[in-house]
Amino acid sequence: MKRIIIAVIALAMAIPSMALEQKSPNGNVVLNFELNGQGTPVYSLTYKGQVVIKPSTLGLEIVSRQGDLMEGFEVTGSETGTFDETWQPVWGETRDIRNHYNELLVKMVQKKSGREMNLRFRVYDEGIGLRYEFPLQRRLAYFVIKEEHTRFAMTGDHTAWWIPGDYDTQEYDYTESKLTEIRGLMKGAISPNASQTPFSDTGVQTSLQMKTAEGLYINIHEAALVDYSCMHLNLDDKDMVFESWLTPDAQGNKGYMQTPCVTPWRTVMVSDDARDILASNLILNLNEPCKIEDTSWIKPVKYVGVWWEMINGRSQWSYTFDLPSVQLDNLDYSKTKPHGLHGANNENVRRYIDFAAEHGFDQILVEGWNIGWEDWFGKSKDYVFDFQTPYPDFDLDGLNEYAHSKGVQLMMHHETSASTRNYERHLEAAYDLMNKYGYNSVKSGYVGNIIPRGEYHYGQWMNNHYLYCIQEAAKHHIMVNAHEAVRPTGLCRTWPNLIGNEAARGTEYEATNGSKPFHTTILPFTRLQGGPMDYTPGIFEMDMSKNNPRNHNHVNSTLARQLALYVTMYSPLQMAADEIDNYLKHMDAFQFIKDVAVDWDDSRYLEAEPGRYIVAARKAKGTDNWFIGCTASEHGYTSTVALDFLDPDRKYIATVYADSKDAHYQTNPHAYVIRKGVVTSKSALKLTAAPGGGYAISIFPASPEELKGLKKLPATCQ
Amino acid sequence: MKRIIIAVIALAMAIPSMALEQKSPNGNVVLNFELNGQGTPVYSLTYKGQVVIKPSTLGLEIVSRQGDLMEGFEVTGSETGTFDETWQPVWGETRDIRNHYNELLVKMVQKKSGREMNLRFRVYDEGIGLRYEFPLQRRLAYFVIKEEHTRFAMTGDHTAWWIPGDYDTQEYDYTESKLTEIRGLMKGAISPNASQTPFSDTGVQTSLQMKTAEGLYINIHEAALVDYSCMHLNLDDKDMVFESWLTPDAQGNKGYMQTPCVTPWRTVMVSDDARDILASNLILNLNEPCKIEDTSWIKPVKYVGVWWEMINGRSQWSYTFDLPSVQLDNLDYSKTKPHGLHGANNENVRRYIDFAAEHGFDQILVEGWNIGWEDWFGKSKDYVFDFQTPYPDFDLDGLNEYAHSKGVQLMMHHETSASTRNYERHLEAAYDLMNKYGYNSVKSGYVGNIIPRGEYHYGQWMNNHYLYCIQEAAKHHIMVNAHEAVRPTGLCRTWPNLIGNEAARGTEYEATNGSKPFHTTILPFTRLQGGPMDYTPGIFEMDMSKNNPRNHNHVNSTLARQLALYVTMYSPLQMAADEIDNYLKHMDAFQFIKDVAVDWDDSRYLEAEPGRYIVAARKAKGTDNWFIGCTASEHGYTSTVALDFLDPDRKYIATVYADSKDAHYQTNPHAYVIRKGVVTSKSALKLTAAPGGGYAISIFPASPEELKGLKKLPATCQ
Repeated sequence: MKRIIIAVIALAMAIPSMALEQKSPNGNVVLNFELNGQGTPVYSLTYKGQVVIKPSTLGLEIVSRQGDLMEGFEVTGSETGTFDETWQPVWGETRDIRNHYNELLVKMVQKKSGREMNLRFRVYDEGIGLRYEFPLQRRLAYFVIKEEHTRFAMTGDHTAWWIPGDYDTQEYDYTESKLTEIRGLMKGAISPNASQTPFSDTGVQTSLQMKTAEGLYINIHEAALVDYSCMHLNLDDKDMVFESWLTPDAQGNKGYMQTPCVTPWRTVMVSDDARDILASNLILNLNEPCKIEDTSWIKPVKYVGVWWEMINGRSQWSYTFDLPSVQLDNLDYSKTKPHGLHGANNENVRRYIDFAAEHGFDQILVEGWNIGWEDWFGKSKDYVFDFQTPYPDFDLDGLNEYAHSKGVQLMMHHETSASTRNYERHLEAAYDLMNKYGYNSVKSGYVGNIIPRGEYHYGQWMNNHYLYCIQEAAKHHIMVNAHEAVRPTGLCRTWPNLIGNEAARGTEYEATNGSKPFHTTILPFTRLQGGPMDYTPGIFEMDMSKNNPRNHNHVNSTLARQLALYVTMYSPLQMAADEIDNYLKHMDAFQFIKDVAVDWDDSRYLEAEPGRYIVAARKAKGTDNWFIGCTASEHGYTSTVALDFLDPDRKYIATVYADSKDAHYQTNPHAYVIRKGVVTSKSALKLTAAPGGGYAISIFPASPEELKGLKKLPATCQ
Repeated sequence: MKRIIIAVIALAMAIPSMALEQKSPNGNVVLNFELNGQGTPVYSLTYKGQVVIKPSTLGLEIVSRQGDLMEGFEVTGSETGTFDETWQPVWGETRDIRNHYNELLVKMVQKKSGREMNLRFRVYDEGIGLRYEFPLQRRLAYFVIKEEHTRFAMTGDHTAWWIPGDYDTQEYDYTESKLTEIRGLMKGAISPNASQTPFSDTGVQTSLQMKTAEGLYINIHEAALVDYSCMHLNLDDKDMVFESWLTPDAQGNKGYMQTPCVTPWRTVMVSDDARDILASNLILNLNEPCKIEDTSWIKPVKYVGVWWEMINGRSQWSYTFDLPSVQLDNLDYSKTKPHGLHGANNENVRRYIDFAAEHGFDQILVEGWNIGWEDWFGKSKDYVFDFQTPYPDFDLDGLNEYAHSKGVQLMMHHETSASTRNYERHLEAAYDLMNKYGYNSVKSGYVGNIIPRGEYHYGQWMNNHYLYCIQEAAKHHIMVNAHEAVRPTGLCRTWPNLIGNEAARGTEYEATNGSKPFHTTILPFTRLQGGPMDYTPGIFEMDMSKNNPRNHNHVNSTLARQLALYVTMYSPLQMAADEIDNYLKHMDAFQFIKDVAVDWDDSRYLEAEPGRYIVAARKAKGTDNWFIGCTASEHGYTSTVALDFLDPDRKYIATVYADSKDAHYQTNPHAYVIRKGVVTSKSALKLTAAPGGGYAISIFPASPEELKGLKKLPATCQ
């Protein structure tokens, strides 16, 4: 199904203060534009008649003898149109995605300088995208951005779920507060990280989720971040105005532009129903269509890995403690003394291969397989890895052969230590090696301060690098899951081999500093707006000392919620992150992880409130199997889930994996109940997520044969 | 012939203030070392009993909680030895090079921190090399250098031939002054450049040539600049002490070190005969032996090129004036309007191919062959060239075939605009393309400010890049001639495919701002110490307006001196840089350029005084052909050249290409005389170089047949 209607009306007259308006297809969202008395562009936004964004100025501060692109503009024309198209993602939450908006293009010239700058607005039923566009012109062929001054004037002291603005990390725990409280809470919100550069007492990151006193949900983010630096938001907490704050480069500049060019889209999503924010495809829709012609090699992945044991400290990425420093080309590891804690050893990897094959996983991640881990971090070391040479106890050839013989694949791992020149120099050979041995996906990492030194993780330089790797990987038919890379902005539509990202506080923190119990009720509103997260759920042992006696951390979740995350945290790449031995203790619960799909024909957000709870139901790709997940904050959550999305003509077997009545993320996280029974589209299940808990449900259509002896699942089954 | 004798004496005792001494093989140069009262290493140097370097401290300022590596050292032992080896360069000034030195290794520990730092001195008959060495150690595994504090305390207010210290350019005109005059002359010495970052009123570059009031010639430079930033010298002009001043990175740091490691050698050459400085191989000898196993593909090159016409402004590198900016992947040049001034067009290139083939040149450089030149400079443009796509009027395939059919080759050109990430991303494909079409040498360029932004041309980051390109080129059997790269430090011994460099003010400036007439009497003392320069001599038309009516510049040289430069400016890569039409007017003089060799079995510096004159004689590789060149300052120079280096048993035909009596670089540069006659080893020729002039002589052994009718060349023949 493909419907495209574009109507264009071009106005040629220059009307300095002309007011322009564009409405969303259903009329709920209204965008207004005008130039103010100084010739500065101003936009505002309403939703169902309520003000969402008060009049807010737009403009760019640039390095130019002719001054900034902030004022003195005249409108030379405008164009409007409607676009309506339904497209099919290579992988996604739904089979079809409708892209339906009304557009307003405002053409402007800065009278004094003769420079042209246009603004394009796309107005959707659940929000807008706006971007700056610069046509090819002699008077503005190249320019350097000092700062972008896109404002978002709030109507009041909204509640926000925010993390500190930072040029180098997104791995902060969320804080829920009023906007006016951000300044006072900032210091406490900046927890330690391997690389971090906060910049302002009121600087926060996007996607920023807010809620007004009147019950409007507002979300600010960006889409299609290509060849530009990542945007933060800095709050004027007197007037409640957010302003864009770009990531600088080593010299403090924030963007190098060559016309014709456009900025990324600045997005404002709005609804009076929180579920609309989760269900929205606005960010994806604002990205370019897929640029990969043959996508048949791109496949969702469920995986296990030699990983959690290093994260919890039981084993090591490195091979030896002998070496104060490693010079890769001058070292024979076989002559060093192994410390015996190396996780990526043949025996261990074979065990994971066996486990993956037995339980239907696609791949096995193995971190620490390649030489260089002895001094990989914090040394500002240029030539830190070669991405090609295995440690002596990792049989690259043999392990891949073994995996393939069992119908599974190894997943490649490329930690770069943020030494990006070194990575790019080895990229082709590293991807060639993957092709040679039959790896089709890579988890890459950028831990530590960026090399070239002075650049930041989210600057234009690095954003260019991340995309370069994705594009080069596509040539090799390789899927990329980049950790510590910039937060996603929907580029996975254009490059669906970008199968995952980290770009937020993942499960790994549960093994060290922990995350707040409400964490997973926020991420789908914020981090997941731009694309899937490799959150690595599935931790069954919450007491880290059981894995490693020296580790006294605790996972702030119940076991049942760990299952739910496979549904609530949408991703085509899902890990069962815990160690095999911890799964073996709970194989009944593990069944859900085995069953759950990673690609979907349909998704429904049944209930949602940021910071409180999310209940989602998804229909597995090409089947009539449904999976439901609920994650709740420390307050827990009880509700009745109506299964009215099921086929009314069929009967299903549902298995509920829920917190026990006495479950609690801190004191009793492993208490769960499993109930199996028959359900139909008329069923409604009253379910309770414990504090920091949740539940998961699998629902399979069943033949009369299969239904034999099974009872109807009671409305209350915990 | 290979003689190696190493004698090692290790002293195990820690003697805090122990004085150590090492003499050169002939005893003329004496190096003294001790620790002063603060435990700071101090060295000094004498030559034939005269002080050259007064006691001077050594040390490194580093980022460390344990403090700098500047004081508190104890000597824990020392080793001495003698090394004597004769090696054969792949190409060079002589067939054999003797590497003969006495060595002193001082082993030290910083008592407080337990960190080890050693100093290695190699004492030659014509000077010393010293370097810092850091053994592998847990207490100093990684460190960041804030500054190196290697001092060179002069004995007085010497005369120096200097150019301003600068992180981004070496292309300054030399100034001759007393050391105390540098500060006052600095501002005037800093002429404009496409990228420049001077840093101090008394900062100068190496190699720095000086002369004492007592007639000692002293030269300070460095050798084996690998994975370190380039050293400048900053003068304390009260005490006449030079101190090392490294090139910083974008964050102001000056070096990232990983033990085990060494710094480059800091060199001091000294003699009471200026010719010894020119003849010295100290810099080459301090570099590692050749690392390329099969060097059969490395061959000296004499070339012409489509180049001077762009330098003088008659034609253009670009193809069209249509485009305010070029996006390489979105442009069809064949649809743009050519401006008709594109130099690298098929017809013009074919004419150069014909000319090269007819006159015995090996290669033809063609700049501007590839797309992107419309906005190549000054835009901080990342993706500026792809190094692979020719302009529509350059038939890559056809022109190479045509050249090969005539027995010559095209020379590749890679201007990078200093956008080094882009270059590295395309490097493999660009070298592959060269292999495919049969190019075996590339002239690369780094014009403009470095990308990654904030890095400098001579910082560790870029020095790593230059060497990376050389090493990758070697894998492709490609010779590299890098312009705007860091000044050479003898690395061509290790990587002889580094066939040339610019790294100084080349002939191109004669077409724009000009260079002082004494320029070429200084370069062999300074710039050429580290390796050959692609100086591009051979300009026959000194009046630029004859090439391009809009260009009113003048070449500050006589035509005869342009011939001499092929001998005085040693390089295995020599260009005949002028346009064909200018050569056609002086084919008698052009004969010398056709005849002169580019590789040598022997070289003699007959007379030399920096800033005044150089007379050199060289014997062509594998032959008994000799070539003599003389270059003189604005004062001219007259002397009698004894040909006693000729085989006493043979007769030779000499052809003298000399300034006419009334020649003058400004008023009468094209006036020359050519005299041909018989010479022997007993001949002595009185010859005069005009102001800014010079002369060249070719000497071929002749059979009685060839000698018939030829007279003895008179002692005075001008």
